[in-house]
Amino acid sequence: MTTGEAMSGLRRANRLAWAGEGGANSFLFTQYKYLAAFTAIFAVVIFLFLGSVHRFSTDSRPCKYTRGRTCKPALANATFSAIAFLLGAATSVVSGYLGMRIATYANARTTLEARRGIGAAFATAFRSGAVMGFLLASLGLLVLYATIKVFGLYYGDDWEGLYGSVTGYGLGGSSMALFGRVGGGIYTKAADVGADLVGKVERNIPEDDPRNPAVIADNVGDNVGDIAGMGSDLFGSYAESTCAALFVASISSFGADHDFAAVAYPLLISAAGLLVCLVTTLLATDLFMVKTVRGVAPALKLQPIISTVLMTVAALVVSFAALPANFTMFDFGAVKQVKNWHLFFCVAIGLWTGLAIGFTTEYFTSNAYSPVRDVADSCKTGAATNVIFGLALGYKSVIVPVFAIAVSIYVGFTLASIYGIAVAALGMLSTVATGLAIDAYGPISDNAGGIAEMAGMSRRIRQRTDALDAAGNTTAAIGKGFAIGSAALVSLALFGAFVSRAGVADVNVLNPKVFVGLLVGAMLPYWFSAMTMRSMGSAALKMVEEVRRQFAAIPGLMEGRAAPDYARCVRISTDASLREMMPPGALVLLAPLLAGTFFGVRTLAGLLAGALVSGVQIAISASNSGGAWDNAKKYIEMFTQAGASDHAKSLGPKGSDAHKAAVIGDTIAVPQHPDQAHGRRVPRVRAILRRPWRPDIQVDRG
Amino acid sequence: MTTGEAMSGLRRANRLAWAGEGGANSFLFTQYKYLAAFTAIFAVVIFLFLGSVHRFSTDSRPCKYTRGRTCKPALANATFSAIAFLLGAATSVVSGYLGMRIATYANARTTLEARRGIGAAFATAFRSGAVMGFLLASLGLLVLYATIKVFGLYYGDDWEGLYGSVTGYGLGGSSMALFGRVGGGIYTKAADVGADLVGKVERNIPEDDPRNPAVIADNVGDNVGDIAGMGSDLFGSYAESTCAALFVASISSFGADHDFAAVAYPLLISAAGLLVCLVTTLLATDLFMVKTVRGVAPALKLQPIISTVLMTVAALVVSFAALPANFTMFDFGAVKQVKNWHLFFCVAIGLWTGLAIGFTTEYFTSNAYSPVRDVADSCKTGAATNVIFGLALGYKSVIVPVFAIAVSIYVGFTLASIYGIAVAALGMLSTVATGLAIDAYGPISDNAGGIAEMAGMSRRIRQRTDALDAAGNTTAAIGKGFAIGSAALVSLALFGAFVSRAGVADVNVLNPKVFVGLLVGAMLPYWFSAMTMRSMGSAALKMVEEVRRQFAAIPGLMEGRAAPDYARCVRISTDASLREMMPPGALVLLAPLLAGTFFGVRTLAGLLAGALVSGVQIAISASNSGGAWDNAKKYIEMFTQAGASDHAKSLGPKGSDAHKAAVIGDTIAVPQHPDQAHGRRVPRVRAILRRPWRPDIQVDRG
Repeated sequence: MTTGEAMSGLRRANRLAWAGEGGANSFLFTQYKYLAAFTAIFAVVIFLFLGSVHRFSTDSRPCKYTRGRTCKPALANATFSAIAFLLGAATSVVSGYLGMRIATYANARTTLEARRGIGAAFATAFRSGAVMGFLLASLGLLVLYATIKVFGLYYGDDWEGLYGSVTGYGLGGSSMALFGRVGGGIYTKAADVGADLVGKVERNIPEDDPRNPAVIADNVGDNVGDIAGMGSDLFGSYAESTCAALFVASISSFGADHDFAAVAYPLLISAAGLLVCLVTTLLATDLFMVKTVRGVAPALKLQPIISTVLMTVAALVVSFAALPANFTMFDFGAVKQVKNWHLFFCVAIGLWTGLAIGFTTEYFTSNAYSPVRDVADSCKTGAATNVIFGLALGYKSVIVPVFAIAVSIYVGFTLASIYGIAVAALGMLSTVATGLAIDAYGPISDNAGGIAEMAGMSRRIRQRTDALDAAGNTTAAIGKGFAIGSAALVSLALFGAFVSRAGVADVNVLNPKVFVGLLVGAMLPYWFSAMTMRSMGSAALKMVEEVRRQFAAIPGLMEGRAAPDYARCVRISTDASLREMMPPGALVLLAPLLAGTFFGVRTLAGLLAGALVSGVQIAISASNSGGAWDNAKKYIEMFTQAGASDHAKSLGPKGSDAHKAAVIGDTIAVPQHPDQAHGRRVPRVRAILRRPWRPDIQVDRG
Repeated sequence: MTTGEAMSGLRRANRLAWAGEGGANSFLFTQYKYLAAFTAIFAVVIFLFLGSVHRFSTDSRPCKYTRGRTCKPALANATFSAIAFLLGAATSVVSGYLGMRIATYANARTTLEARRGIGAAFATAFRSGAVMGFLLASLGLLVLYATIKVFGLYYGDDWEGLYGSVTGYGLGGSSMALFGRVGGGIYTKAADVGADLVGKVERNIPEDDPRNPAVIADNVGDNVGDIAGMGSDLFGSYAESTCAALFVASISSFGADHDFAAVAYPLLISAAGLLVCLVTTLLATDLFMVKTVRGVAPALKLQPIISTVLMTVAALVVSFAALPANFTMFDFGAVKQVKNWHLFFCVAIGLWTGLAIGFTTEYFTSNAYSPVRDVADSCKTGAATNVIFGLALGYKSVIVPVFAIAVSIYVGFTLASIYGIAVAALGMLSTVATGLAIDAYGPISDNAGGIAEMAGMSRRIRQRTDALDAAGNTTAAIGKGFAIGSAALVSLALFGAFVSRAGVADVNVLNPKVFVGLLVGAMLPYWFSAMTMRSMGSAALKMVEEVRRQFAAIPGLMEGRAAPDYARCVRISTDASLREMMPPGALVLLAPLLAGTFFGVRTLAGLLAGALVSGVQIAISASNSGGAWDNAKKYIEMFTQAGASDHAKSLGPKGSDAHKAAVIGDTIAVPQHPDQAHGRRVPRVRAILRRPWRPDIQVDRG
């Protein structure tokens, strides 16, 4: 193979990547248009709700928490909260979008570096992921810091008002994450099911055949759901936990003493986290370069361990440098005496809990361990046993993370009340740059492998990219574990911030209003899941109809003489997902509003607590069931190649009864578990790339 | 056909029924042996725990709740609690056993009556179910009443001690229910999967072929899981709610005033319920006899409605006759003013909530309505969509029941604190005789149809039994709804009784110990489900191995020349289920003990509340997903016969791709949902009966 051939192959790959990216961009821009409308309306609602507290009066008022001081008028708080909300939403959107662009750019570079050796390729793929991680973590921190500083010009001494308004930032970030995740999930699944059912089942053409009208929509979906969704999700958690901590600090002794260094403790922890991740990344890519194929997986796995160890030291330094030795924290109306090393413990327990959850998730979803192998084994007796074992695995995988989160909560709560929970969440998220680097590394090295294959590069180079890919599959789960664990802690911190702000001193389960809220709240995640699963189903149905229509209406499509209308499928998936994401989104936003308005603050507190404790379980179990089904299928598929264990060989090959059962499990996986889609992207990109390049694939580029 | 032929057919049927019943008896007796050991140990534990409170002192002590009075020594309470526990366990076992015997006897009688007409057949099947219902409801009431009276001889004026000890009765009943349900579920599923996987898949012989060594175990499992399991389950709920109400009443003004009629209010409500159900049954079987095939389903559906209406009137009468106009109720340390009509409202709201849940369950699990038809429709696109739609249906079906339960709780709690919840649960269970009659009616008319077919009775008679059977399928769900709804209320009432007894005045979610308990408690149902699902899997695996071994080791088995060793399969299922039911049982019993011992009463209270609100959702969604998968399969199977809708016809026939996908869903159904097995029993009994009678089926009779 000449270099010229390879380069023309690369050009081909790039063109296809552009077609997919064009689709992804077109989806994201349509989604952003909807979200812009939603955000504008919601900002107005925030303004009206908060502004009406004192009938839009422009008079300053006595502060609520800091006795004897004067605070800015409610109208100002309403205005600044709405602005902070818009800033949070914008930052989330920008993070998601840039993350996706970076990932797309990184693929071809990794392939090129693979010609130089495994070490160079690994460094490139990993650095690209790290760029995404650092971008997201630093952008969130920067915008938040700037917001505080700019708002501070107006608020001056009124920190209660200042940090109260800044909480809008967190809400903005997490609202976008909600819609991004739900919309992206529905999009991916509709396209995936539509493409598979008509293409593979009815028309009997291979997966990702360019004749399939839904094939581009399918690839776009994977891009959108994985990279953009994961980025905005983690940003939402990060922004929420920081804002919750800032608000609680502002109504505690830090705020009363106007000790900015202490109030800014959450920001300092995040900043220290960025430096720690930087050092950790350098260790992997520069100081201890990966030299062999076998070294890739350990290098990746070491990353979260190293960053957790270093961050523990950094947290100790920050805690002693930034905090006074003794201070008090707001504790639901009362006051709690806290010492600086208490907060260090809160951050540290969050950090290590995250690591524990990450490795538990890996244990339950990686096909290197027995749980997934048992699920793969159960495929021998059919799809039903596969589903049963997968569900049971998901249920079982909840135990360790819930105990770990419980310990975090207990330590955080006991040492520093709600502030302790918030900084525990921040501790877990402080190594987010490393977590995201590992997570984004997966799809990047996946696609690099696809490009290597398409470009006809040598077997040696492909072995290198395959090794990168395989390692990414097993470590991506660690990042996912961090995401769920931190979401649980963040929810609790927000719950605490809400209860503090609402002035509720106790949420007694023996109060009927609270208990009813608890029961109904525990039901909400089920309602939400029922909605998203149904939405996905009906969107998939529309896609199936369109793909059938095109096969019937376009003469010569099956023979490869005519081009399908890819753009139309992309549009269907886009429209459906945008329309269908509204009802579940409305449920999440309206349920607390309605409960609070009609049944009061205690029912609302119960509702939030119920939704939290029930949602954690569903999230972990569904995510891990999905991951296990996915990797059980891969275990049967991949390990029938060289180096497979005897057990794996007994289950395969592709197309065996066990494999068919595994595919059914994998198809169930996605709607419950939108963020595990990336692992499934590459086989498809590869399948397309393997075919001779045909210009009709670019139809929807413009 | 001569009468002689029919009679010899009936004799054949009876012999087969006896073989199955022999297996069921042998399982139950082995199970009872294990349970007897467990019960004895647990009774000793109860004695030691309660007796050690005052170091086994035999001195009388001042009462805890009624100031200024003297109560019996703790040692007496320990002794009588242990005795009450044993009595509750014994009553549960007797109820389950007798229920199963009655159901077995009723089959052939129903077939005989079918020769006289649909009305007579319906009356027989329904009366047989009613005998079971009345037996269970009245036995529970009678033993409880006798216990109170006999214990009262010793306790005299000390009602606190008396009703405190009587609570052991409830614990005994529900412990047996736990093991009965879990053990029965594992048994059924192991036998079912084992029989199907080797017989149908590997050996390609029809379902229920007598050559299959696991066929008798399979039928026994259905008997054991359904009739005996359902009976002990409802008895457990009934005993628990009555005991909780009695205990709370005894420490309220009823107890202080020694007003026995008022304290016995829960017993009077149950007694009134028995009379109401008697009248309701007479209406169906004597006053308004069913005359046509079309009249069967409405007659069954009217039963819960009529009994609920009548019971509302009866509750009003009992409330005004037995209760003083004004009284006070214990309210977590405080005292609540209650009026007699308040309690009437509590009972009534429970009654009507039960009806609402029952009909919601029917809507979501009967193939007469769109939810199940949508699930059936999704089978067109394969097993994966079937699973997704079934899970989504289960999640969605949670909404209405949870809101209904929330209303019950709110009304009960607000009007009469924890006592209000307990009597709301009793209200729901007051029509339990009717509910059980409808539920037991299903398998009875199912088996009657099988006997009619085997005995070669005329097409007209078989049409009659088929009509009885079809109606039973759709209405059994109503009873199931009552069971889950009442279990939720009962759990809450017990939670309240526990909190009252532990002297906890508030369970504040903002207390870290409580919140951690809540979070871990919400995880327990997942852990429990993971255990039972895994247990079922490993038991099924053992059965598969044994069936394979027999096919390989017994020469001539496949050719029908040699008999399989049925007894060995029955023993495997029995042993496995008894061994495997221990870990989940231990989890349920030990988790509260450990939480309370090591983390204190507040963590325990949080744990119980969390398990309750999370468990309700899993129970309803898993039960309804299972029911929907079952009936979606039936919709495709049954409705391809005469009178099927065009939609149903488009999905069938048996063996179509859609049907295969539906079968996968149905196989998933059972482990999550042990009580829906009965609907699947009959096709099997029929399949066996259709074959010429062969003596080897009786192998395990002795």
